[in-house]
Amino acid sequence: MSGTPALDTLVQALRRLPGVGVRSATRMAFHLMQHDRASALLLSRALAQASEQVRHCERCHTFTEAAVCATCLDPRRDASQLCVVETPADQSAVERTGAYHGLYFVLMGRLSPLDGVGPRDIGLEKLFERVGDGLVQEVILATNFTAEGEATAHVIAQALKGRGMVPTRLARGVPAGSELEYVDLGTIAHALVDRR
Amino acid sequence: MSGTPALDTLVQALRRLPGVGVRSATRMAFHLMQHDRASALLLSRALAQASEQVRHCERCHTFTEAAVCATCLDPRRDASQLCVVETPADQSAVERTGAYHGLYFVLMGRLSPLDGVGPRDIGLEKLFERVGDGLVQEVILATNFTAEGEATAHVIAQALKGRGMVPTRLARGVPAGSELEYVDLGTIAHALVDRR
Repeated sequence: MSGTPALDTLVQALRRLPGVGVRSATRMAFHLMQHDRASALLLSRALAQASEQVRHCERCHTFTEAAVCATCLDPRRDASQLCVVETPADQSAVERTGAYHGLYFVLMGRLSPLDGVGPRDIGLEKLFERVGDGLVQEVILATNFTAEGEATAHVIAQALKGRGMVPTRLARGVPAGSELEYVDLGTIAHALVDRR
Repeated sequence: MSGTPALDTLVQALRRLPGVGVRSATRMAFHLMQHDRASALLLSRALAQASEQVRHCERCHTFTEAAVCATCLDPRRDASQLCVVETPADQSAVERTGAYHGLYFVLMGRLSPLDGVGPRDIGLEKLFERVGDGLVQEVILATNFTAEGEATAHVIAQALKGRGMVPTRLARGVPAGSELEYVDLGTIAHALVDRR
């Protein structure tokens, strides 16, 4: 882009979005200004509104617009089970299975010392407090099966054991619908060990 | 995402950006709300401001915040030369060479019948009017060397010839710094024909 300060400011602001470099940002700004100012205004309002209205559920930490989210308020959920996930997207994936009817604790991240994300940033104190409330009987660790997700699950498991509770972890194994030939060896090894 | 209307609205709005699908949009919304609300507000303001302030130069059609852009107003530019480019980014590329001192006409697009972009959408009437103003002695077609850019250059060239002016076109040839072995054959063939 050249010449206009408002456009340069827009390109710089778009570059702050994750995964957007200067070329994508320039393309986005050009597209919005040349072909779709309605979307630009819509996005402007959506950003302002979300920034103002979205906060964290007091009980499970997920995004909500009320003090406590709808899931935590639902009296039909089983309060004795607490499923720990990294993000609202992960929670949504577990919900879509229809196989879980307990409550959630959403870390809104994962431990990542290299990125400066420590226990406080993912609300572990609050999680341990919650687990000690007398209602929770089982904690299911459903963090991702990545290096950081596994490390996070390990840290939480160790801390819970220190408090006299042994959490469970989602089973590792062969994905439904897959052929063994194409499954990575680590997964097959885990499926063998955890066979039932 | 799940649960909050403001977040869903934000994800939908982000999806209108070119190249952004539902997964990227969700990731962007999560990032902004969880880690960077300052950027969300900054982007919101930048979008509103650009939508309000950015308009098209009355002379060359590029983005500007005044009635006529700085380049068109610059008395040191050679008004006898008019370089036709597709976008402000292309104009900026020509400017950075430092080898051109004339004026520009920015099409803000290219002919693309399949996408419903016709001569009116890229301001060809205005271009022909401009060329007939008595000042312009040479029109340099610097549209991209893509199928659509070539077609656009061809249409403009035909129309200008009908008005008694023969435009020039950027030379096709071997890019500076490249080895022949790795240059595509069409480019070498053009470089042979246009040898000097």
